[in-house]
Amino acid sequence: MKVLVTGFDPFGGEKINPSFEAVKMLPNKILNVSIVKLEIPTVFYKSIETLRSKICEIQPDIVICTGQAGGRSHISIERVAINIDDASIEDNEGNKPEDKPIFFDGENAYFSNLPIKDIVKGVKSIGIPAEISNTAGTFVCNHLLYGLMYYIHKDFKRTLGGFIHVPYLPEQVINKKNVPSMSLGNIAKALEKVIEISVEYYEKKQRA
Amino acid sequence: MKVLVTGFDPFGGEKINPSFEAVKMLPNKILNVSIVKLEIPTVFYKSIETLRSKICEIQPDIVICTGQAGGRSHISIERVAINIDDASIEDNEGNKPEDKPIFFDGENAYFSNLPIKDIVKGVKSIGIPAEISNTAGTFVCNHLLYGLMYYIHKDFKRTLGGFIHVPYLPEQVINKKNVPSMSLGNIAKALEKVIEISVEYYEKKQRA
Amino acid sequence: MKVLVTGFDPFGGEKINPSFEAVKMLPNKILNVSIVKLEIPTVFYKSIETLRSKICEIQPDIVICTGQAGGRSHISIERVAINIDDASIEDNEGNKPEDKPIFFDGENAYFSNLPIKDIVKGVKSIGIPAEISNTAGTFVCNHLLYGLMYYIHKDFKRTLGGFIHVPYLPEQVINKKNVPSMSLGNIAKALEKVIEISVEYYEKKQRA
Amino acid sequence: MKVLVTGFDPFGGEKINPSFEAVKMLPNKILNVSIVKLEIPTVFYKSIETLRSKICEIQPDIVICTGQAGGRSHISIERVAINIDDASIEDNEGNKPEDKPIFFDGENAYFSNLPIKDIVKGVKSIGIPAEISNTAGTFVCNHLLYGLMYYIHKDFKRTLGGFIHVPYLPEQVINKKNVPSMSLGNIAKALEKVIEISVEYYEKKQRA
Repeated sequence: MKVLVTGFDPFGGEKINPSFEAVKMLPNKILNVSIVKLEIPTVFYKSIETLRSKICEIQPDIVICTGQAGGRSHISIERVAINIDDASIEDNEGNKPEDKPIFFDGENAYFSNLPIKDIVKGVKSIGIPAEISNTAGTFVCNHLLYGLMYYIHKDFKRTLGGFIHVPYLPEQVINKKNVPSMSLGNIAKALEKVIEISVEYYEKKQRA
Repeated sequence: MKVLVTGFDPFGGEKINPSFEAVKMLPNKILNVSIVKLEIPTVFYKSIETLRSKICEIQPDIVICTGQAGGRSHISIERVAINIDDASIEDNEGNKPEDKPIFFDGENAYFSNLPIKDIVKGVKSIGIPAEISNTAGTFVCNHLLYGLMYYIHKDFKRTLGGFIHVPYLPEQVINKKNVPSMSLGNIAKALEKVIEISVEYYEKKQRA
Repeated sequence: MKVLVTGFDPFGGEKINPSFEAVKMLPNKILNVSIVKLEIPTVFYKSIETLRSKICEIQPDIVICTGQAGGRSHISIERVAINIDDASIEDNEGNKPEDKPIFFDGENAYFSNLPIKDIVKGVKSIGIPAEISNTAGTFVCNHLLYGLMYYIHKDFKRTLGGFIHVPYLPEQVINKKNVPSMSLGNIAKALEKVIEISVEYYEKKQRA
Repeated sequence: MKVLVTGFDPFGGEKINPSFEAVKMLPNKILNVSIVKLEIPTVFYKSIETLRSKICEIQPDIVICTGQAGGRSHISIERVAINIDDASIEDNEGNKPEDKPIFFDGENAYFSNLPIKDIVKGVKSIGIPAEISNTAGTFVCNHLLYGLMYYIHKDFKRTLGGFIHVPYLPEQVINKKNVPSMSLGNIAKALEKVIEISVEYYEKKQRA
């Protein structure tokens, strides 16, 4: 069994991206399952292509993408991605799509098929604030989750997929007034718990 | 040389108080200076009396009080305390004073004589968000800082004193929507830095 | 030409609902188009049925539903509704569905077909803060927008439909700390502008 | 009997200042008392001098200064001003004092002698959100309130004085995400109520 976990490279003027920083800290095995880590470029379509290639290559059972949600205070588990790109800043290659569908033959939205409520409970149970989010925005995070679920529905039907948004790191908010943050250690612990709950859920489904 | 560091006991329905939790984690020596730790009851006047007794007993050079500021995202270094008690909830012994002066013969306000700007810079320099605060509220935190500076002005003129407000811990905001928190490790690291900067400032003043 | 505008009845312990209060203030004609006003019960399914009956009865060209989004500071124009009911409080008849699809034969999501970007620009142009929102939540507001767009796609293909979330009124936040509000007059002015922009867009589409 | 009400000119890149906009809307008589209106420059010391000259000239019984508190959602009644200028932006003549006392012979702080609790109750009673604030910051607003109370204590002992902070206007937050505002009409109504409560309090004190 294999879990693919991704984080993004820095964007929007930030020097680091807490998502991939936390992914790098994860152990290589969780509950005896191999963890494969991948950095994804914060670029429309190239992000989806990078993810898709890796999925084809390693055939993971579970794919968990992560990204930075500057301004949120809790780990947020995304419920859904919508078929729209609508950027208010440029991505890392200068693209700034406005109100464009991601895939013309895709559904209006795809729901994550991770056990999002159990994940929230699990992360809270280790003392880290977590919540369901009903929007991943309309920038590259939503784009990637949409692409992931589009390909899961099309080509990888047995795969579980989802997206976790993480707060800024403390060092990112030093000059931002009243903006919440979360320590890297806690973000990594939360992601480890996300993977544990997802693996247990996957195994229970297999047995069922 | 000696530093007295205090934190409060839990109040307002919380089960822990991040301030004393962090104080307990501090080493017993910082920059070769002894650190004495004291838990203070969240009670009007009793808090000041507890602090004053300890100051008389151990004669510290620096007194740093800490308290919980639920809802703030940054470590905040208080600039000033005002001569008023005005509680919107009861303290831990059921007192709820409204618009009462703390000491009739006290000034309207006292400024902390810690190097508050240097402290903010120092805490930021280790990657932890910090800011000056211009109000410690009108509950027991402001009360204690006021009492501390009142006695420093009256009886302990060479002592440095101040107050640090710290955010909720992550486990305290698990069921609070959009409320920021800070890890206990980072709060403790910040307090250690606060003490270092204060000790260096005290020593420079002595030599001057 | 006819526009149907709806607001909800009060819910969640509030005594009024700013959405229907503002709808009531609208003139009966805007740009020479008849405005029909309807109060909708904050109840799962019954809300959709109430709306659908009225649509069948009066055959409007444009349907604009409005609801209260406590805590938001800006008029928000919803982009999309998702096929899920997931309530954290009871509706006005005691229903509290968790993770239930709204219509089994519906799409995962429907996008509003109002000109949402033009509407934001138009509302801002009269000095009232407005924004696109990418989530209408998972309570009765999302439910109603989903139902509206489901029936538009199925039965009323030439109709324009959308949803506007409005802030609390000032009197609703009197005892809520740091919670934004908007005056009833400004909410009503914003809704009037929303209708104007929508009517102009509808007429331009007809001519095209 | 006379009431002097002041507002500031715009600063910090804003084109208007809601405080003086609202002051201009006040009637010339409230409860049969003359209202004198004055615009104050957002400049350290010049603001105090402008206010002091007018006080000497017209000898008001009550002085109510108002200013913009961008980011606050409620009308806030300031409790206290502290003896410090500490600017993070330049005033309208390029001054940016850091940690400077306002008057060397002044107290550390002065409390407003308006009936601040009654004012909060009164403003709420007309459906407008209001609160006590324990800090007017360390920019020109605090500076002016400090100067006002300094001169009241020194030269105009029978005068009542205080400071009201008002939110942004809706048009000021059009391009500010999640920032609250209040309509000009409601700000003006709130100020009228502030004056009414202050006049009634003054008259009761005279009779006592």
